[in-house]
Amino acid sequence: MPSPEFFQVMPVSDALRHLETHWQPGPQIETITTADALDRVLAAPIASPEQVPAFRKSTVDGYALRAADTFGASQSLPAFLTVGGELAMGEAPALDVGAGEALLIHTGGMLPTGADAVAMVEHTQAAGAGEIEVLRAAAPGENVIHAGEDIGAGERILPARRRLRSQDIGGLLAVGIASVDVLRQPRVGILSCGDELLPPEAAAPPPGKVRDINAYTLSALARKLGARPLRLGIASDDFADYQRRARDGIAACDILLLSAGSSVSERDYTRDVIDGLGQPGILQHGLAVKPGKPTILALCDNKPVIGLPGNPVSALLVARQLLPALVARYCGQPLETPRVVSARLTQRIASVTGREDWVALRLSEGEGGMRAEPVFGKSNLIFTLVAADALLRVPLNAGGYDAGALVDVELF
Amino acid sequence: MPSPEFFQVMPVSDALRHLETHWQPGPQIETITTADALDRVLAAPIASPEQVPAFRKSTVDGYALRAADTFGASQSLPAFLTVGGELAMGEAPALDVGAGEALLIHTGGMLPTGADAVAMVEHTQAAGAGEIEVLRAAAPGENVIHAGEDIGAGERILPARRRLRSQDIGGLLAVGIASVDVLRQPRVGILSCGDELLPPEAAAPPPGKVRDINAYTLSALARKLGARPLRLGIASDDFADYQRRARDGIAACDILLLSAGSSVSERDYTRDVIDGLGQPGILQHGLAVKPGKPTILALCDNKPVIGLPGNPVSALLVARQLLPALVARYCGQPLETPRVVSARLTQRIASVTGREDWVALRLSEGEGGMRAEPVFGKSNLIFTLVAADALLRVPLNAGGYDAGALVDVELF
Repeated sequence: MPSPEFFQVMPVSDALRHLETHWQPGPQIETITTADALDRVLAAPIASPEQVPAFRKSTVDGYALRAADTFGASQSLPAFLTVGGELAMGEAPALDVGAGEALLIHTGGMLPTGADAVAMVEHTQAAGAGEIEVLRAAAPGENVIHAGEDIGAGERILPARRRLRSQDIGGLLAVGIASVDVLRQPRVGILSCGDELLPPEAAAPPPGKVRDINAYTLSALARKLGARPLRLGIASDDFADYQRRARDGIAACDILLLSAGSSVSERDYTRDVIDGLGQPGILQHGLAVKPGKPTILALCDNKPVIGLPGNPVSALLVARQLLPALVARYCGQPLETPRVVSARLTQRIASVTGREDWVALRLSEGEGGMRAEPVFGKSNLIFTLVAADALLRVPLNAGGYDAGALVDVELF
Repeated sequence: MPSPEFFQVMPVSDALRHLETHWQPGPQIETITTADALDRVLAAPIASPEQVPAFRKSTVDGYALRAADTFGASQSLPAFLTVGGELAMGEAPALDVGAGEALLIHTGGMLPTGADAVAMVEHTQAAGAGEIEVLRAAAPGENVIHAGEDIGAGERILPARRRLRSQDIGGLLAVGIASVDVLRQPRVGILSCGDELLPPEAAAPPPGKVRDINAYTLSALARKLGARPLRLGIASDDFADYQRRARDGIAACDILLLSAGSSVSERDYTRDVIDGLGQPGILQHGLAVKPGKPTILALCDNKPVIGLPGNPVSALLVARQLLPALVARYCGQPLETPRVVSARLTQRIASVTGREDWVALRLSEGEGGMRAEPVFGKSNLIFTLVAADALLRVPLNAGGYDAGALVDVELF
């Protein structure tokens, strides 16, 4: 006869901190194509191998000229210049600009030797064959980008641990860096355990069996966080099978999630299995949170291992509190704050002190703003989460919220 | 001699609305594996083909029994029941529960015939061989999930146009739906044009040439939005080549971005090329925004076509204002609001009335909160965006912001 569980629960944030003080992530580095590097994290700082632009160029459509030739020019007293021709785009200028001369140039075009400014087309007008009037003085350097003005050769363009954005990819490619060293995305292994579990494609589970969905909700969560999920299949309640799969699994991943079947014997198995995966092993068993109380946090040979409840609601809601921090830390990134909206509770939400509660809510637009209504149903029904738009965290000792309270809820 | 450009600019939001009133997106539908459907948009509502759970199950570890046998039970006057055995997980119970009997059951286990409640292990104690004392009365249905209590057969589980979340994937798999019909992600074609452009992997561009980065920054933006970028290569300034590539490109995509080289002749080409792509053609040329004024919005045979400036800063900042709305509308999704933070400007930002301005900012933690400092540099330098953490939108007629103003800036 199994005995009931007793464990000293710990607040989620404390348990996470405890795990993080023991964990020294050593992310692997891989080289990938820059064009495919969106949202990936740079392994090392990057300096520019060359200057941008590589040559002086015009920022407008107009006339490349010598600024000195336009000094004092105005509408009433224009400067007359001889137009020596048009500069082709994408080529080194075949012509120079001499005193009293100008060349037609396009935006982005390379400035010819002799010119030091560009007069905008709008500030010129045609004056006889091969001549223009410049109606406004151009200052030296006007409408010109100098070589190296965007970035100099050897200048640092991106720091280590930068998560690459669209513009960063543009900057890297602008200087010809077509591949980059980035951190490998953490591989999050997910092993489900339980004799009652079948793969979800099972057409008609026989009585007593259910489809394993945790491996898939947790995979989706991991992918959403930019990690690489690795589904490790379903272990039976046979200890040797469970242990073998967990050992093989942890070798292939950076973070291991065990979603244990919820029977008491299996929970004991999970403790024992984790204890066999490496040192220091289990750091905390039991979180001051509902759902998710029986969760296990462990570190085995420098890899975090989380023993999640088998119940799909608990498994997802607890993983959501732990995995983002672990993935962020693996990549040396700050933890992204969840998207929140303000909403008014349609009814009172009670909560036991000494425990954090997560409550699934349905949002609707009401008079005076957003309304949040708790989704009813037993706490282990996945469709309560499917029906939910948001989650409310009731802090440890808040004792709940009154009906009508304005609360920040996390979009979910 | 090309003439300067004159066009009636329109605010970005008006131009978008104008395009959207003409556009009737007809998204394609594709069938994909549910496990891979995170963030994809459902084509049609989905009803459950079966009930969940399929059988009555226990929510706790304990004893399946007849509630009536425990009525009046208490610590001082426990109910004595005979334990007929233990129920295996994942199997239909081989035993029934008769009057005065109980069977050991695990969380998730299938309730045996005859039982109508489960007493938690914690509320029982062993009493001689094969007997337990139940220390608290169990109500009928206590600690039991009834068949169909999570979802009933035929019940709607997800609405059309739902963007699938982790829990939605769980719900679908829980009822055995292993593949789903979703909207194909919009294919965003991107064609760069300009004789000065080379592919970014070019080792050492000859004088006058630059690497094309717009195709890549825009691809990354599209991917970030959940669209499928389609790079269409680089068109030369030859009209026939540009037109042919644009025609082939629009046939292969749902939204077409043209990133034109910025010379005046090319801009004229872009107008003409777009006019040849289908009806009604160009809807608006010129936006009341900086950067991005010369942008073209068009609809050609019911596909949006955007003519972007060639300057990489303008191209990315304008695309960022237009593409999210187009992708969201294609998928029937609400436009996601950008992530903003509040920050105090370190200096005054001037702005011309009648024009929206977008200003690149660097953020830093300062006394009294976040500080935002404009990134200096000419407006067409990509490294000004690489150095930026956020963007400030100065509304049409705000006339700028004073130093010290507290503003909402968009993380970028």
